[in-house]
Formats: sequence, C-alpha cells, structure tokens
Amino acid sequence: MKEKFVVTPWEVKGNIDYDKLIKEFGIQPVGDLPSIFNTNLLFRRKKIFAQRDFSRILDAIKQKKPFVMMTGLMPTGKFHIGHAILAQQFVFYQNLGAKLYIAVADIEAYHAREQSLEESREKAIDQYITNYIALGLKPKNCEIYFQSQRSKDGKKSNAYYRLQNLLARHATYNEFRAVYGEITPGKMLSGLLQASDMLHPQLQEFEGPVPVVVPVGVDQDPHIRLARDLASRIKTPKFIQISSTYHFFVPGLNGGKMSSSDPTSFIALTDDEKTVAKKVMKYAFSGGQPTIEEHRKKGGNPDIDVSYQWLTFFEEDDNKLKRIYEDYKSGKLLTGELKQILIEKLTKFLKDHQQKREKAKDQIDKFLFK
Amino acid sequence: MKEKFVVTPWEVKGNIDYDKLIKEFGIQPVGDLPSIFNTNLLFRRKKIFAQRDFSRILDAIKQKKPFVMMTGLMPTGKFHIGHAILAQQFVFYQNLGAKLYIAVADIEAYHAREQSLEESREKAIDQYITNYIALGLKPKNCEIYFQSQRSKDGKKSNAYYRLQNLLARHATYNEFRAVYGEITPGKMLSGLLQASDMLHPQLQEFEGPVPVVVPVGVDQDPHIRLARDLASRIKTPKFIQISSTYHFFVPGLNGGKMSSSDPTSFIALTDDEKTVAKKVMKYAFSGGQPTIEEHRKKGGNPDIDVSYQWLTFFEEDDNKLKRIYEDYKSGKLLTGELKQILIEKLTKFLKDHQQKREKAKDQIDKFLFK
Repeated sequence: MKEKFVVTPWEVKGNIDYDKLIKEFGIQPVGDLPSIFNTNLLFRRKKIFAQRDFSRILDAIKQKKPFVMMTGLMPTGKFHIGHAILAQQFVFYQNLGAKLYIAVADIEAYHAREQSLEESREKAIDQYITNYIALGLKPKNCEIYFQSQRSKDGKKSNAYYRLQNLLARHATYNEFRAVYGEITPGKMLSGLLQASDMLHPQLQEFEGPVPVVVPVGVDQDPHIRLARDLASRIKTPKFIQISSTYHFFVPGLNGGKMSSSDPTSFIALTDDEKTVAKKVMKYAFSGGQPTIEEHRKKGGNPDIDVSYQWLTFFEEDDNKLKRIYEDYKSGKLLTGELKQILIEKLTKFLKDHQQKREKAKDQIDKFLFK
Repeated sequence: MKEKFVVTPWEVKGNIDYDKLIKEFGIQPVGDLPSIFNTNLLFRRKKIFAQRDFSRILDAIKQKKPFVMMTGLMPTGKFHIGHAILAQQFVFYQNLGAKLYIAVADIEAYHAREQSLEESREKAIDQYITNYIALGLKPKNCEIYFQSQRSKDGKKSNAYYRLQNLLARHATYNEFRAVYGEITPGKMLSGLLQASDMLHPQLQEFEGPVPVVVPVGVDQDPHIRLARDLASRIKTPKFIQISSTYHFFVPGLNGGKMSSSDPTSFIALTDDEKTVAKKVMKYAFSGGQPTIEEHRKKGGNPDIDVSYQWLTFFEEDDNKLKRIYEDYKSGKLLTGELKQILIEKLTKFLKDHQQKREKAKDQIDKFLFK
C-alpha cells in the first residue's frame, strides 16, 4: 500500500504516486516524441512524465515556427544539483530554437521570504544566472528579467505590469484562496505577476501570439491552472493557451526532498571534491543491504537508492546505466562501489562546471544589459 | 435635529455634518493661511475646510521649497461644473510653484466600471485634460499620466509599478476590507495602484523625498488613510507623510449630489446658453417661498438655495455676493431673479471657457507627449 502523500506549491512529502497525480490534476502523460527529444536525458528517460497542450509546442518545432519557453527562478538559497539538472532542459529548448523568458521572482521573494530586491539581485546573478551560463545558456534568444524591473524599455515594462493589473479583473478572491490558501495582498499580487510572467511573452510589445511552454515540477501545477484560467477569460488580447510539462522531483541526497535549506539533501555547484565525497558517503540514502554478505546474496534495490537515481540524471550512456542497475540488483556491485561511481561522475561534472562558471562571470553583461 | 448621513468613497447621502466628520475622521480644521491663499476662492470662502499635515505644504511654500500636488481623475462620465471648480485648485497650486502629478485612473475604471483602456484614454483627453488646459493648467511642472502606461521611460514606469507591488507586503487583507468593503482582486490592485499614485512622486526616479498634498472630497479620506498607513510602514524608501486637504461637495443643481449620471444635477462644460437657462430655471433647488407675496414678506433661505450656493463658487466679488445673500434673505431678491444672476454668471463663464477649450485642443500634445 502506498503511503499518503502531499504535493502543493508549498509542501511536497511522502512517496508520490505520480499516476494518481496525473489523474487528479487532469494532466496528460507525455506520449511519443520526435527523435530529437532523445538527445535530452530528461525526456529520454521519461523524467518529464506529463504535459498539458504540449502538442502545440511539438507542432511549432516540426513546422519551425517560433515558440517561447518561460521559466522563473526564486533567488533564495544555493543553486544545487537539482537546479542544474533542470537548467539542462532550458538549454535544450534554446538549442531547439525556442526563445527563452526567464523571470527572476524578486517581487515574490520580497513577499514570501521578506528578502530585499538588492539581495535577490545579487543571489540571482551569483547563483542562478552564472550557473545557467556555465550550463550552456546563450545570450541570443534569451530574455532574463527581474519582476521588479521588467526592462529598460518603457513600452515593454508598461505592457508587463499593465497585464498584471488587468488580469485582476478576471480573477476571483475565492480562486486565489483555493490556489494559495489563506490570502494576503502580497500573495495576491505575486500570483497575478506570475500569471503575467507566463502570459506577457504573447503581448504585442513582446513576441505577439505565440505558443509558450512552461516546464515545471508537478507541485507548481496550481499556478499553471490559475494562469490558464485567466488566459481563457481575457478577451483582449486573445492568448494562445499555455503549454506545460511536468518533471519528477530529483530526490534529495538523504532520500527526502532536495531543499536548499537542508545541506544533507543536496550537492551545491560550488562544493569541492572532498565535500562531494564526504556528503555522498555519509548521507546518500542507500538501497543496499546492511552487510556485504547479505548484499552479495540478496542484492540491492536501485529503485530506492539515491546514488543510482542520481546516476540516471548524470550517466548519459544507457548501456552503462543498465549494467549498473543489474549489477547492483544482483549484488555484484556494492553500495560503496555504487557511491564511488556517483562521486566520480559528480566530481568530473563539478570540476568542469566550476571552470565554466569562472568564464561565465564575464558574460553576465551580455545577458542582463544587452 | 440633523438627519443621518453617509460619507464613503462609494456613497454620499443625507445632510452632511462636516463638524462631526472632522471629529470621526480625525482630520484637522484649516487654520489661518498666508494671504496668498485669499486669491483662491475655495480657500478664501473656506470651501476647503479641513486638512492633514498641511503645515508641511505651507512650510514648503513659505521657504520656496519644492512640493507636489497629486490628484487623480476617473475618466468616466461628463466633465461638469463641479470638476471645473476643483480644477481651479490645481491651477492655483501650480501657480504657487507646485509640480502637479495627475493620474488618469484607467486601471480603476477598467475594474470598477468595466471600461476599456482605449475608451478611458479618449474620455480623459476629450473631457478632462482639454478642460483642465482651458481652465489654466500649464504644461510646465505638470505630469499627466495614465495608470496603465506610467511613462515612456522604462526606469520611471518600473519604479511606479514596483512600488505598487512592494506596498502589498505592508497591507493586510482586513485593512483592505475595512476600506473597500467586500474585496475583489481588481479592487485590491486598484487600491494599491492608487497608493502608488500618491507615493511615487517621492521615489528617486521622480522627485525624491518631497512634501505631497492630495486635495480630495472628504468621502475620499479612506484612500488617504490607507496610503498614509502604508507609507508609515515601508522602511525603504522612507516617505515624507502625505498631506491632504478636504473640500465641501459642490451641491447638485437639484439639491442632491452632483453626479455625472444624473443630468438634472449638473451643468456640463459643453452645455449651450439655452440648456443652461433651462436647467437652472427648471431644476435648481430653491430656498425661496412658494409665492412672490410670501417671499417678499418672509424672504428666502440662501443657505439651502443651490443658485446662491453655486454663486459662492462663481461670484469673485465678496461684497456683491454679500448683497445678494442679504437681498435674498430679506425677500428683496426673488428666486427667478437669483436664478437669472446665476444663469448670467454661468453663461459668461461657459462662453469664455468654450472658446478656451477650442484652443486647448491643440495643446494636448504638450501635456501628454513632451
């Protein structure tokens, strides 16, 4: 029997029954995809497991028509390995020809975390944007903006905030309460600004009507539903309905949720070799048996082993991954050995990434002040 | 005994006991003013009867330091004689050296009246701004802006909307409900934008910290209180507290409230000579006696007579006005004669105004697109 689980924008706990979620939220499984999607690990391994109106995006890709990928970042806490995995998705879309819109949710951080706009700006640049660049983000076809400062161009920023203000007429108080729980003016304004984030790429001042895909964790679906509901009610301008995809959560190192506020749950992108080895050895939740003898006899459980799970995000070679799975399951591969494979993968990735990160720092201007 | 009266931003009815209002709202009577204020009829005749923190503005005037007068207009309905009387106040402040900020509340009209932004723009220009110019408004030291489109300059519009978004953290839901009654997302966003209207002149991107006076009818005090409360809570930037003045309502022609939706209550600034004469003769609420004989014997009551009340806003000559008051009270002046005096005054004013209005049309660009 499955335990009870909770998935909301503010709480994710328990063993998540994704099939049940798909049904409850009324989202669709991701069906067959064009072969180009196999080049992205998240799509190839079905880490992105559900969608709404994604066919619109597939059509745009097929017909080589413009489309937008929109995402937001909350500039609090450290950028960790979970963020890095998702960022690969953004880069994949950009390489596919998407224009990227990346919102730094500094207004939301101000309301939800009482963090000043200055602090949000610093963290967004130092943690998020620098790492995105190191992970392959290109300045072309990419608009990174702060919610508090939509652009230096008056016409554009007016359009963005005007949309926030106009959307309010199409929302009800009860709807907000249903999505956000107990409502405050701050939450309400953040919610409307977030809907404006998702919808404004389609305004005349930006791209005009265009398909927009918002890739999110399934916990974020209430935000998508609210934005879709508002979009369907507003008559002028007429919006093309938002598309979205839903990915599995990258499990926390310790087997719980990966969270910036719990260092035993993540590897930071600035962690050094020694820290990585120590964290994996000490905290990585294991599916192995208590003793070597027992492990050799009964074998380990890769399906709950976090080291193995993380390798599904880092080991590109499907055959190699399959071998690891089987060897661990048969007991041929010990937990310590599996952890060592992960440590090597992570170390190589981080070493490479940290070099790229240094170079990325010089490129910030190309993204923020073009 | 006074009847019950109601004064809220949405309803004004009954015989208003202004002394009681002053006490209830915690506002202060307007005390002695520098002699320059006698040149303005509204101040000289105590039509502006109460204030909050007005001494800050008097200090600025005395020390020839910068200050701002902020006002808003809701671009619905016809511009009438009541609006014209209040506009004289704006022109008076501008001549005193104030910088004027005039917000066209098109976002509020969108929420409260379901009026499109385009319609609001047309009405604001054709009805309000053209008449303001005809009444003496100068383009220098004057920013007229639309809430939906704060300025062509990105930095400025960002600052304005950012403030709206930040203020939300300092407001509570219950506070909004207390001021606005049953709350909707639209009302909440309008309310915060209105607070931003009153406070943004003090942002670095605009004037920086500066005294701001907002002249309002006493029914608008809840908005002032909310903006003052928010201003007092926000730490960065630090605002100089808003000053405000409160004026009596110009009575409606028919003795009720002057309202754009009731043509028997107002004279429009585009009304012709014949219409003015007809409206005053037919609708002006009279303080006279039913028959000439009785009137000659008992005299009229100028304190409730709308024609006399309106003359207090149009007859600049204090002695002449005093004579009219006494003659009407003694019965020497008949109601028809009093009405005739008002008709002549109004006709002269409107004829002059309509000529100025024609010229004003060519000047719109100087105000909106400088």
